[in-house]
Amino acid sequence: MTDYDYDLFVIGGGSGGVRAARIAATHGARVGIAEEYRYGGTCVIRGCVPKKLFVYASKFSEEFEDAEGFGWTVGERGFSWDKLIAAKDQEITRLEGIYRRNLESTKVEVHDSRAVIEDAHTVRLLSTGQKISAKYILVAVGASPNVDTELPGVEHVITSNEAFHLAELPRRVVVAGGGYIAVEFAGIFNGLGVETTLIYRGEEILRGFDWDLRTMVRQEMEKKGIRVLRQDTFTRIEKNADGSLTGHTKAGLALETDQIMFAIGRKPHTRDLGLDKAGVEMDPSGAIRVSADSKTNVDSIYAVGDVTDRANLTPVAIREGHAFADTVFGDKPWTVDHSLIATAVFSQPEMGTVGLTQDEALQRTPNLDIYKSSFRPMKHTLSGRDEKMLMKMIVDADSQKVLGVHVVGPDAGELAQILGVTLQMGATKADFDRTIAVHPTAAEELVTMREPTERLRG
Amino acid sequence: MTDYDYDLFVIGGGSGGVRAARIAATHGARVGIAEEYRYGGTCVIRGCVPKKLFVYASKFSEEFEDAEGFGWTVGERGFSWDKLIAAKDQEITRLEGIYRRNLESTKVEVHDSRAVIEDAHTVRLLSTGQKISAKYILVAVGASPNVDTELPGVEHVITSNEAFHLAELPRRVVVAGGGYIAVEFAGIFNGLGVETTLIYRGEEILRGFDWDLRTMVRQEMEKKGIRVLRQDTFTRIEKNADGSLTGHTKAGLALETDQIMFAIGRKPHTRDLGLDKAGVEMDPSGAIRVSADSKTNVDSIYAVGDVTDRANLTPVAIREGHAFADTVFGDKPWTVDHSLIATAVFSQPEMGTVGLTQDEALQRTPNLDIYKSSFRPMKHTLSGRDEKMLMKMIVDADSQKVLGVHVVGPDAGELAQILGVTLQMGATKADFDRTIAVHPTAAEELVTMREPTERLRG
Repeated sequence: MTDYDYDLFVIGGGSGGVRAARIAATHGARVGIAEEYRYGGTCVIRGCVPKKLFVYASKFSEEFEDAEGFGWTVGERGFSWDKLIAAKDQEITRLEGIYRRNLESTKVEVHDSRAVIEDAHTVRLLSTGQKISAKYILVAVGASPNVDTELPGVEHVITSNEAFHLAELPRRVVVAGGGYIAVEFAGIFNGLGVETTLIYRGEEILRGFDWDLRTMVRQEMEKKGIRVLRQDTFTRIEKNADGSLTGHTKAGLALETDQIMFAIGRKPHTRDLGLDKAGVEMDPSGAIRVSADSKTNVDSIYAVGDVTDRANLTPVAIREGHAFADTVFGDKPWTVDHSLIATAVFSQPEMGTVGLTQDEALQRTPNLDIYKSSFRPMKHTLSGRDEKMLMKMIVDADSQKVLGVHVVGPDAGELAQILGVTLQMGATKADFDRTIAVHPTAAEELVTMREPTERLRG
Repeated sequence: MTDYDYDLFVIGGGSGGVRAARIAATHGARVGIAEEYRYGGTCVIRGCVPKKLFVYASKFSEEFEDAEGFGWTVGERGFSWDKLIAAKDQEITRLEGIYRRNLESTKVEVHDSRAVIEDAHTVRLLSTGQKISAKYILVAVGASPNVDTELPGVEHVITSNEAFHLAELPRRVVVAGGGYIAVEFAGIFNGLGVETTLIYRGEEILRGFDWDLRTMVRQEMEKKGIRVLRQDTFTRIEKNADGSLTGHTKAGLALETDQIMFAIGRKPHTRDLGLDKAGVEMDPSGAIRVSADSKTNVDSIYAVGDVTDRANLTPVAIREGHAFADTVFGDKPWTVDHSLIATAVFSQPEMGTVGLTQDEALQRTPNLDIYKSSFRPMKHTLSGRDEKMLMKMIVDADSQKVLGVHVVGPDAGELAQILGVTLQMGATKADFDRTIAVHPTAAEELVTMREPTERLRG
């Protein structure tokens, strides 16, 4: 062991890397970690956390409106982007400090530098040039936003990275993309009063989710005032004399706007990382190929999190990092089951989902019972807001097993979390039916669905 | 069958009675129903539904404050009690109409009258004096608020019934009681800007719930500005010359206030119902004694809902009514399992709970693992509000079965509903642990509790 400077060197101080480093250290390993930007990674620094804070901020505008239906009058309101950014930055800095202290308290040596791989047991810190040897190297460098580099005028666009630090809130924005990041930011901008357009090349936003939810979320977004352009993309972006941008689209539109944000996907952050020097295999997209226990083709090099492009979610990266550390350093081998992962999209309205979509279920099972309920959330009976909630349950008609549950509406993400437990346990429709309702809640709809709204056979 | 006017006559148009009437009718029974006040019953007319609408209304004041931490400035706000009452009344009338139409659409004959029992097969409508015979009678008259009739000055107090229709919002209120209705109304009044005091004779509010939750909810209520007086009760209430009230207490306080609302319990609404004429047995509190299938000691008379004082909750009454109708008219006998009922209290902060409290669990099982986590909800990291969320899981240390889950905080009631499914399924701690987190949610705390905070043995 003493041949190496460390038992484990982790490249990347995000959720997966930090968890792996801490758990390995508690198992007695000597651990070093390097991060080129800020500890906490995408999730804490420029992902889930600041995004959700922005979502909270953007929802107040509807609260002010909704209050009127309940007898309130609300005077003139204003919004300061600067104040939001400052408050958000302060919170992120606090969280980053916690990450750093948690590493230090488990005796992980923290390096503030980009680190690259020199060979199967060596990394180099770019800040100092120092070479460090380690018995194992864990690559947990995450991913970063894609842009269409071939697009004329692409230099004028921003990504979510920049959206968290805009000098001022634009009056108008166009978000390009249809995935959850695009949809969440469109909701944020719209809620903060920005004239918002979403442009997406596909037939419907939120590819990969259940079709009913995709349609509904898009329709609700449109009701809130977001312009959604589908089956269209930018062909050219021009900067105008007054600083505004004009985005020309394939369908022939010229969208004049103040900011264009691209959220068209993310790519593994493996460029110039030296993986080739160690002979680590990647797929064509740059994602590191790993086995179920997160090992690359090089015995001493492992990888977890978004850089492996399995399920690109913080809790998955954390779990992969934890499993790696337990397996390699704790003599407790286990692997992460990626087959059933509940997720939330903090769109407005929110989406929470676990298990199979209707289309996926149909490919596996001939007979399905679909239970679907769409209703106005109780709050909006008085607010008057024209917003619906949707609950959809997909049941194997033969086994009565619940294959998927999909929710659009307030707290959908919270519901998805506990629904995840029920599907993990192999819940049947009868398990839901047996459960007595909690009244008045929205979730009670899920235990009071008596007849299928659709029976799909064969 | 033709000897009787109806196969079934239901007394009481609340949740339990209406469900029973409709289901019996769909099974082919000829059904009549009588309601003395308004269809929908306590829940719809002066319980769960208007209460929750009031809770929504009362939460906006904190939203306005919280918005500031996110960069918003909110101008002068005002609140009109009249507008809230009018909006609430309109919604309640709409719901009442739905109840009535649903009865009519299943061919249930609807009578707007108080009905009393004449004998085992006869009821009399007080509005007309008409006597009606029925093969079966279902008593579903619910319960009504208690007041301490011996208390000097009791004529000056109101109950929740009146609170839904106050001519004006009082400047000051004292709520007497420590149960969920008292606690919910204290939160409502306080949120609407009323100077609010809660007085309760017991050691801690919310008897019957887990001790940690009781303490926490009370502390959070106090933080929000509610004065909570414990181990004290009114001894005398005086009306003052200016119309205000002074409530004198056992501890010697003189509480000057504008309204005093009693919420010290509810009693079955069986007085003068004629149950004695048919020989129906009641317990000393006036609750009708029934078997597991809701049958009284008289073969032709059944009772469901609060009048039986089993679990006094709308969904339970509905289920009891449904089971009765399926059993007696549908040839599908089943009974309601009252052993595991998830519930919500729409206190501020909200409470959601399912399964055993720690004290109850200790009486049944010697070895418990307690998992407890208290944290600031993410929204309040920026709002700056000093409010905590609590999650508590009680696990049988030997079997690892989850015996109870208790939540205080936003959406606790929604979580309780789905947690109810997991406990219904016999969830173990490992079932929660295996479930991947949904990030960032509050509920993920429940699947990431790694070590017990307390191990109780023997």
